Amino acid sequence: MSHNTFGHLFRVTTWGESHGVAIGCVVDGCPPLIPLTEADIQGYLDKRRPGQSKYTTQRRELDQVQILSGVMTDTDSVQKTTGTPISLMIENVDQRSKDYSEIALSYRPGHADYTYDAKYGIRDYRGGGRSSARETAMRVAAGAIARKIIGDITVRGALVQVGPHRIDRDRWDWDAVDANPFFCPDPVTAENWATFLDEVRKSGSSTGAVIEIVADNVPAGLGAPIYGKLDTEIAAALMSINAVKGVEIGNGFEAAAISGEENADEMRMGNDGVRFLSNKAGGVLGGISSGQPVVARFAVKPTSSILTPRQTITADGEETDIVTKGRHDPCVGIRAVPVGEAMVACVLADHLLRHRGQVGTTG
Amino acid sequence: MSHNTFGHLFRVTTWGESHGVAIGCVVDGCPPLIPLTEADIQGYLDKRRPGQSKYTTQRRELDQVQILSGVMTDTDSVQKTTGTPISLMIENVDQRSKDYSEIALSYRPGHADYTYDAKYGIRDYRGGGRSSARETAMRVAAGAIARKIIGDITVRGALVQVGPHRIDRDRWDWDAVDANPFFCPDPVTAENWATFLDEVRKSGSSTGAVIEIVADNVPAGLGAPIYGKLDTEIAAALMSINAVKGVEIGNGFEAAAISGEENADEMRMGNDGVRFLSNKAGGVLGGISSGQPVVARFAVKPTSSILTPRQTITADGEETDIVTKGRHDPCVGIRAVPVGEAMVACVLADHLLRHRGQVGTTG
Amino acid sequence: MSHNTFGHLFRVTTWGESHGVAIGCVVDGCPPLIPLTEADIQGYLDKRRPGQSKYTTQRRELDQVQILSGVMTDTDSVQKTTGTPISLMIENVDQRSKDYSEIALSYRPGHADYTYDAKYGIRDYRGGGRSSARETAMRVAAGAIARKIIGDITVRGALVQVGPHRIDRDRWDWDAVDANPFFCPDPVTAENWATFLDEVRKSGSSTGAVIEIVADNVPAGLGAPIYGKLDTEIAAALMSINAVKGVEIGNGFEAAAISGEENADEMRMGNDGVRFLSNKAGGVLGGISSGQPVVARFAVKPTSSILTPRQTITADGEETDIVTKGRHDPCVGIRAVPVGEAMVACVLADHLLRHRGQVGTTG
Amino acid sequence: MSHNTFGHLFRVTTWGESHGVAIGCVVDGCPPLIPLTEADIQGYLDKRRPGQSKYTTQRRELDQVQILSGVMTDTDSVQKTTGTPISLMIENVDQRSKDYSEIALSYRPGHADYTYDAKYGIRDYRGGGRSSARETAMRVAAGAIARKIIGDITVRGALVQVGPHRIDRDRWDWDAVDANPFFCPDPVTAENWATFLDEVRKSGSSTGAVIEIVADNVPAGLGAPIYGKLDTEIAAALMSINAVKGVEIGNGFEAAAISGEENADEMRMGNDGVRFLSNKAGGVLGGISSGQPVVARFAVKPTSSILTPRQTITADGEETDIVTKGRHDPCVGIRAVPVGEAMVACVLADHLLRHRGQVGTTG
Repeated sequence: MSHNTFGHLFRVTTWGESHGVAIGCVVDGCPPLIPLTEADIQGYLDKRRPGQSKYTTQRRELDQVQILSGVMTDTDSVQKTTGTPISLMIENVDQRSKDYSEIALSYRPGHADYTYDAKYGIRDYRGGGRSSARETAMRVAAGAIARKIIGDITVRGALVQVGPHRIDRDRWDWDAVDANPFFCPDPVTAENWATFLDEVRKSGSSTGAVIEIVADNVPAGLGAPIYGKLDTEIAAALMSINAVKGVEIGNGFEAAAISGEENADEMRMGNDGVRFLSNKAGGVLGGISSGQPVVARFAVKPTSSILTPRQTITADGEETDIVTKGRHDPCVGIRAVPVGEAMVACVLADHLLRHRGQVGTTG
Repeated sequence: MSHNTFGHLFRVTTWGESHGVAIGCVVDGCPPLIPLTEADIQGYLDKRRPGQSKYTTQRRELDQVQILSGVMTDTDSVQKTTGTPISLMIENVDQRSKDYSEIALSYRPGHADYTYDAKYGIRDYRGGGRSSARETAMRVAAGAIARKIIGDITVRGALVQVGPHRIDRDRWDWDAVDANPFFCPDPVTAENWATFLDEVRKSGSSTGAVIEIVADNVPAGLGAPIYGKLDTEIAAALMSINAVKGVEIGNGFEAAAISGEENADEMRMGNDGVRFLSNKAGGVLGGISSGQPVVARFAVKPTSSILTPRQTITADGEETDIVTKGRHDPCVGIRAVPVGEAMVACVLADHLLRHRGQVGTTG
Repeated sequence: MSHNTFGHLFRVTTWGESHGVAIGCVVDGCPPLIPLTEADIQGYLDKRRPGQSKYTTQRRELDQVQILSGVMTDTDSVQKTTGTPISLMIENVDQRSKDYSEIALSYRPGHADYTYDAKYGIRDYRGGGRSSARETAMRVAAGAIARKIIGDITVRGALVQVGPHRIDRDRWDWDAVDANPFFCPDPVTAENWATFLDEVRKSGSSTGAVIEIVADNVPAGLGAPIYGKLDTEIAAALMSINAVKGVEIGNGFEAAAISGEENADEMRMGNDGVRFLSNKAGGVLGGISSGQPVVARFAVKPTSSILTPRQTITADGEETDIVTKGRHDPCVGIRAVPVGEAMVACVLADHLLRHRGQVGTTG
Repeated sequence: MSHNTFGHLFRVTTWGESHGVAIGCVVDGCPPLIPLTEADIQGYLDKRRPGQSKYTTQRRELDQVQILSGVMTDTDSVQKTTGTPISLMIENVDQRSKDYSEIALSYRPGHADYTYDAKYGIRDYRGGGRSSARETAMRVAAGAIARKIIGDITVRGALVQVGPHRIDRDRWDWDAVDANPFFCPDPVTAENWATFLDEVRKSGSSTGAVIEIVADNVPAGLGAPIYGKLDTEIAAALMSINAVKGVEIGNGFEAAAISGEENADEMRMGNDGVRFLSNKAGGVLGGISSGQPVVARFAVKPTSSILTPRQTITADGEETDIVTKGRHDPCVGIRAVPVGEAMVACVLADHLLRHRGQVGTTG
């Protein structure tokens, strides 16, 4: 039962609540002899960390990761994985539990407050408890390890839509992504988003977003029919991120509207084998990678933590209104970019390990 | 490793190729004492069966299911499940292997031909082999058993878009779904689709589609954070269906474009507990059902089996053109409706069994 | 949940009842391009088949296996695996349901009759239903495929104890195993067993047995701490066989009685690396193979199907006596030899595939 | 892949090396609303802790457990589980790495040194690293939580053999178990063991042992054919404990030597349903509990850490001798008693949760 675990050969189990002592994860199945230090992980965590611009929550999360097991300094003085489980932990340092007295009683619309109570009969209301996006820090940490396994495969993400405003794909520039606080690949749109998000922030409102993840240098042959498809597992990985409501592979929902002629990715011979004339499929055919870039997108809803009062009920069945005070995140989709990258990296690492186990195997 | 298996407590393992001796599945984890006959399953299979109108492939699949194990006639003369694995089999009766000589050599664009060869070094080219949509017959069969487990929960599907043509949601009528060959809930749009699909069919082209699945009477509390979320598993289940390129829960990608105020499903007290004022979330909050209808949509691409020649290569690296002769399916999305229903029913059955194991458990 | 499935990368799901239409299994995870025909499997099934001597049940099981999926005749005219699930089926041809009227009502001591009813509220009493040793035919079939994967590794089994009578290990001769109806490696003891088992058979009694399985040419490095240990999974595989009550690895329970000095397998250098001076460990250290032969033993209880009346109760709570009429198996342990071999082969195949996925993996 | 995870619905993932920063585990699947504090766990850890008598290693392990997640103080001021993963950690305080310089180079016979190197190409030689029995502390911790789930079911263990010396079963007294340093249920034998183990200890030798675990009040119906049998999973759980070489259920290997008449557990009606006249089966029939006490035994080999030099090789392929200096454990089997109890408790908790998910399920 994979309630808090994802992956098969590369397995990640996360634990911890937003305002508990710490959060952490156990990464099992990482091959041995891979150089790994806390610094390798910290860089990706810093990218996800809130409070880095006025467009994300000002909650202070230092997110200092510790490796508690699974590595050892080898005879060459390099710290390496040993093949045993890698335990990672981040201590929670900014636990303002006092902000959360109201939501102990009332269910915030659009949050998991009501459903956790319905399922468990108890819920950790402090900062959202287990349902907080804080859990995604451990996904990013695990993703940093996954990247070490997948080697030449690169996984990059970008924000392609904020509220109703989409980027212009003709201006796509990967170098621009790190040059603005939105992971936006289109510098012109990034400026428009700044204006838009200032308004959202000032009005205490929030907005949704769409993130695109692209994996390059994926070899052909990763994935597996029928229920372990590469795109199936990417879809699950992305849909499991907080606030995600939709996932697409390749041209996604656009495929529904066009003809078979338009949708076919025709093939010619290139210098290194097959050359596809387009990539409508997003790099996956029949659940198996084709050697083209793997392209996935996911939609993040606007957070329900807003200043406008919303109608709700209390745990005791009283009708009331609720306003989320304190620090706000006008667009939670921004910080979902490194999380989406990490999830795709984990799925690819998992499939790469599975692939090695399954081919060229006769005696 | 769940390559050909889905589910956790309610597990379905499918096997078989399009033009092999038979296809089948093993359903493990079905509770005992549930009345079950072949007729219970056959009805759903008939709904998926091709050749029922000119809008789906004329390939003859009788799809006569046999129950090989897991049931027994009880003392009350009713055939019931025994709690042991239920083995289902459908013999393949229409195996026109002669039609498939060309694709033994050439890779059809948009099909899994190339990627299967890249992964396995061998592929069953007859009718698409394992990657054929024929496999989905066993999903429908398993779904029929899942429906018996979920009891009062109903799972219904409808086609809501064909090519660029969407239904008018104000005309949604569940009764209309069975009154046209498209599972269309909007009778007016159904007629327009008939005209459109006639053209598509006559020109030897194909078109994509969007299917919506709605589960009513889902109790609050099904699902599980963080990686076993109800919506995550529905997304995976739907994305695993052949030709699916996108999945949405609730308002899906629309959520990206709107504000937190618009997206909040406010709550009031009703006669039987909470009453939600809207269902943007699609019945799932934090991965757990809220008691509202669970709503999911998925996009099916147009099949690449079309009469217009497409550029491709052969297994030997020669450039060539390919035309898919023989029987065509202008809109594979139509037959995906009962398949989507079945997948959602299976996920709900699985979560219902898990739910029973986890609550109210102290000594 | 692996109720009817074993293995991780090499997965076997079995189905079917003793007196149903058929029994079968689905083997998932078999690598592609392995030559495989029904004849490859049939040879091992014939070894397990009852009725081959007067020392095993005279029940007629033809056990003719069919491969329903997962193989294809390649361009070289050789039938090979394709990497997709291999479905195997054996039709049940000798279903004398009339023999089983009494046990529909009464619980046979030592059988699963009572516990199946306690768990499921229904049970297939015909020939033991799902709890019949008939299910082990599919283990043997799956084991035949596993042997193709493990290549040079050989897995052989022998009966080393029948009732209180043990073999003399100094006379161990693998060639003798196939020269007597007991799989006995000691020709002298085999003759004694013949006398002993004649008496057991004539008196309508039964006796237990101990089987030893030896795997040669196992490379060092298979297995995995902590819960996926090679010996742990062998123990589970053997204990899951019907009527097994004990499992040992290497010197097993004898290890409890001796000193650390006696128990140490000392090491010297040989021509091809390490040379162990003894094999008390049975080829496994810390859950990982050492390169020595893997040695496991398991104890099979005497079947409770005997002619002497035993006290029991009926499903209605009446006290009664029961005698098992019809065909008897004086020593079910004999037929457990090929089953034990198959289980060990499956575990080794699984670990071999896992091993390939996990080493030498940096980028 | 369950390398470092065991269980299905009640899942335990352990991590950590003997001389790393800490060891820990994540317990997933524990139902909510169960009162749980660190004190509940600490009591069982103290029972396993070394250094409590001269008969176990003098290594100082304080084993102070911390609960890092998954609990919350409820409105009634009682700390309870919330249904989310419970993360437990014990910091390592006694890490005398200096003792371990020699084994960095040489392989200790009977240890996992050689096989870890063969598998991973790297090994944490400090205190045995991951293969150290230190890992079993987390099993005991997880077992303490499992006991809370199984309620009225009690799980008790006892040492029944030390070296060649067995207890007299006629003198079995559960109250005696805690009154001697050996968990011995027979006070007379306990005194003999004291003498024997003094000699073993003084000579720097070691000895094996046999442990028996008994679970009382197990309801009928737990377990599941065919590969998820209750006895199969108990066998795996016990075999996964360090140094275990054999496992028995009920009368175990003795069953091989007796007749079907002797082995049958006859049934009569008692006041509360069925009454068995014996318990040769050890409480499990066909993999499902019968309502009788579940009885399992396991054999622990003598540790190879002894003062007598043993022949071995170095990682560089040099022949050498090795002596394990420092603290010794004359009989590691003593401390295996609470570990065995914990493993059986975990398996029972897992099956109890599964059982709840599977019965009484129509509509």
